Amino acid sequence: MEQSLRQSLESIAIKSKNANRQLSKLSSKEKNSILSNIKKNIILKADEIIKANLIDMDNAKKIGLKEGVLDRLLLTENRVRAMAESVETLIDLKDPVGNIYDMRTLENGLIVGKKTVPIGVLAIIYEARPNVTLDASILAIKSSNSLILRGGKEAINSNISIVKIIRESISELGYDENMICLIEDTTRESSVELMKLKGYIDLLIPRGSASLINSVIENSKVPVLETGVGNCHVYVDSSAKIEMALNIIENAKTSRIGVCNAMESLLVSEDISDNFYEGLQKIINQYNIIIHGCEKTMDKINNVIYATDEDYGKEYLDYEMSMKVVSGIDEAIDHIYRYSTNHSEVIITENYENAMKFLNEVDSACVYVNASSRFTDGGIFGFGAEIGISTQKLHARGPVGLNELTSSKYVILGSGQVRE
Amino acid sequence: MEQSLRQSLESIAIKSKNANRQLSKLSSKEKNSILSNIKKNIILKADEIIKANLIDMDNAKKIGLKEGVLDRLLLTENRVRAMAESVETLIDLKDPVGNIYDMRTLENGLIVGKKTVPIGVLAIIYEARPNVTLDASILAIKSSNSLILRGGKEAINSNISIVKIIRESISELGYDENMICLIEDTTRESSVELMKLKGYIDLLIPRGSASLINSVIENSKVPVLETGVGNCHVYVDSSAKIEMALNIIENAKTSRIGVCNAMESLLVSEDISDNFYEGLQKIINQYNIIIHGCEKTMDKINNVIYATDEDYGKEYLDYEMSMKVVSGIDEAIDHIYRYSTNHSEVIITENYENAMKFLNEVDSACVYVNASSRFTDGGIFGFGAEIGISTQKLHARGPVGLNELTSSKYVILGSGQVRE
Repeated sequence: MEQSLRQSLESIAIKSKNANRQLSKLSSKEKNSILSNIKKNIILKADEIIKANLIDMDNAKKIGLKEGVLDRLLLTENRVRAMAESVETLIDLKDPVGNIYDMRTLENGLIVGKKTVPIGVLAIIYEARPNVTLDASILAIKSSNSLILRGGKEAINSNISIVKIIRESISELGYDENMICLIEDTTRESSVELMKLKGYIDLLIPRGSASLINSVIENSKVPVLETGVGNCHVYVDSSAKIEMALNIIENAKTSRIGVCNAMESLLVSEDISDNFYEGLQKIINQYNIIIHGCEKTMDKINNVIYATDEDYGKEYLDYEMSMKVVSGIDEAIDHIYRYSTNHSEVIITENYENAMKFLNEVDSACVYVNASSRFTDGGIFGFGAEIGISTQKLHARGPVGLNELTSSKYVILGSGQVRE
Repeated sequence: MEQSLRQSLESIAIKSKNANRQLSKLSSKEKNSILSNIKKNIILKADEIIKANLIDMDNAKKIGLKEGVLDRLLLTENRVRAMAESVETLIDLKDPVGNIYDMRTLENGLIVGKKTVPIGVLAIIYEARPNVTLDASILAIKSSNSLILRGGKEAINSNISIVKIIRESISELGYDENMICLIEDTTRESSVELMKLKGYIDLLIPRGSASLINSVIENSKVPVLETGVGNCHVYVDSSAKIEMALNIIENAKTSRIGVCNAMESLLVSEDISDNFYEGLQKIINQYNIIIHGCEKTMDKINNVIYATDEDYGKEYLDYEMSMKVVSGIDEAIDHIYRYSTNHSEVIITENYENAMKFLNEVDSACVYVNASSRFTDGGIFGFGAEIGISTQKLHARGPVGLNELTSSKYVILGSGQVRE
């Protein structure tokens, strides 16, 4: 049984790799024609997708999945239309592969430069978000990468429907549909076997909960792009404008609680005025935010639970957060160094030196002065779409868009040169 | 016993990580002052290094190591001076960290850009080349990365001597010497344990034989930069200038046989004239090159051994290579796709369309038209020095110099912006 699952995944991976040789030769125009056809068919067959999604929704309700999951799973007519429109956005973006740059002529006359190329075969393991199926597929096609999708079982009917439309849109134009493949087996084993396909898969992207991501990082034999876990900090410096600080805190914590760029930990300079705490208490009361804090926090804020080390390291994804009153910027930076997942950190300050110190010494994917951590997003940064937010330092860091899904090669043009 | 090895490595890794916090804050000037002091002390204490190296050389001769290994192990006065001079080259290079680029202002007034940062803690596992000890150390310091060295047992006395000088040069100036650490235990176990130090080591670079590199890729729990195995191809197109082709072949195969950018496989268009084979036969005879070839090769060249699949996939690193007569560029590209290690490949042609096709479709770190594969080298490409040549597509590809030893972070400057 396990042998046959392995064989079936290997066979998908081989098809995907072969399709990539064709895909990597397509012009921007040809790739955009595929994307246009996908957009057209998604709109044309929206009913099919919504019907399949209804089955998933029914099943999800039967097994009592939480409201948040149900919302992520749901595809309405509007949401399908938005998906189709996101294809248009991607068509308009510049082709990330085939760009030649840094060309220079060496003393011996050799012309040396770099050229962007696709990575090859991507795979993504994700949970109950069927929109990721389309997003990831169109990002892959535009960047000339093949893609193997392994979505969650909750969304399997939606995923089958969407991938069928994508593959038909590809083959209608005479190209190899295997550039996009879906693994329909949603057992834990299929995930595990996928992670073992070394030599076939060039990059595996886990997208979803911290436990999913950590399990992939722990077990994968193929290269992984670590995404998304965000224990994001906001540090309020003594010189901060109180109103700005409260505004950013409210936005970073409450505008969307279930996302990786939400604030999970608040650090406050002990020199801040009591005005700040009054405003903060209002926000906490308004949203019923549970606070895990230090002793000094307890002096200022009501109903604080004493924070353990574990609490300071936690990504809550809820109306809940950790908080610490610190002696100043140095303690704040030390705290972040110790507990951060290196996603997004914010300083709120009017002090130039402290702003620079924070920017220089905090080593996270995104470091902010006087803005909400919620801006960490490929769309906001102008990438059109993103496949995730990298919290690792190798290959790509921060939002991963089209450019981050490429590699490069050196091209060297000679006229008979040999090395002495 | 194993427990205590693990503990001792962990303790080195923790020291290295702590040292990195200091190192990452040093200015270019401070880092260059360390490099200058290293250069000074290497020259001052050259005798110490040479004395230590003599012990290694004696031991190596006793156990009967091959001429090639002895040559790589040997440090003469001239070689030590060359090492010291390589420090000067690095001082003159631009600091790769702290550079801010791609700054732009979004519609909401947020200023978003990227800044280069060090990777953190690097580790390198290498064999009997004591010059790598210094090269890797100075590259690490200049790029603000800590470095843990695990060299081969053949060079242990040389390595201890060199690292002692480096560390003294650091601490003399009041900095934390643990930015450079040497693992003096050269048992296989120390290598294995090093590969398990997840969470401490940010990037592990194996440098040496194919078997060393493959074993690290196979077993490492920390991210690895795959380097160096080069089954490099030269394809002689029917339109090639015969003299240029022979010149490049001689250079690529024979100018230095033991290196990863040497030619290991020769592909020849079946339409090439017999002149070419006459010239090739002369080169083969002159250097006593063993040829593993196809049947058509046997028709043209004397004493050819019939080539197996394994022969076509092999990196010989000797006066030995594989050879195939192909129907044209398409078969050449297919052959390279199948057997190449994606290091460096060359086409020799006067046909523009074929040159472009080869550049576009061959997916290796370095793709050449009409030049020797021997140019794949950080020094030649203008990087000053290299820590290896990456044959992977993630993070860095081709020669890995200072810039490739960095990551980046987004810096975002706001004035109170929150996300709608």
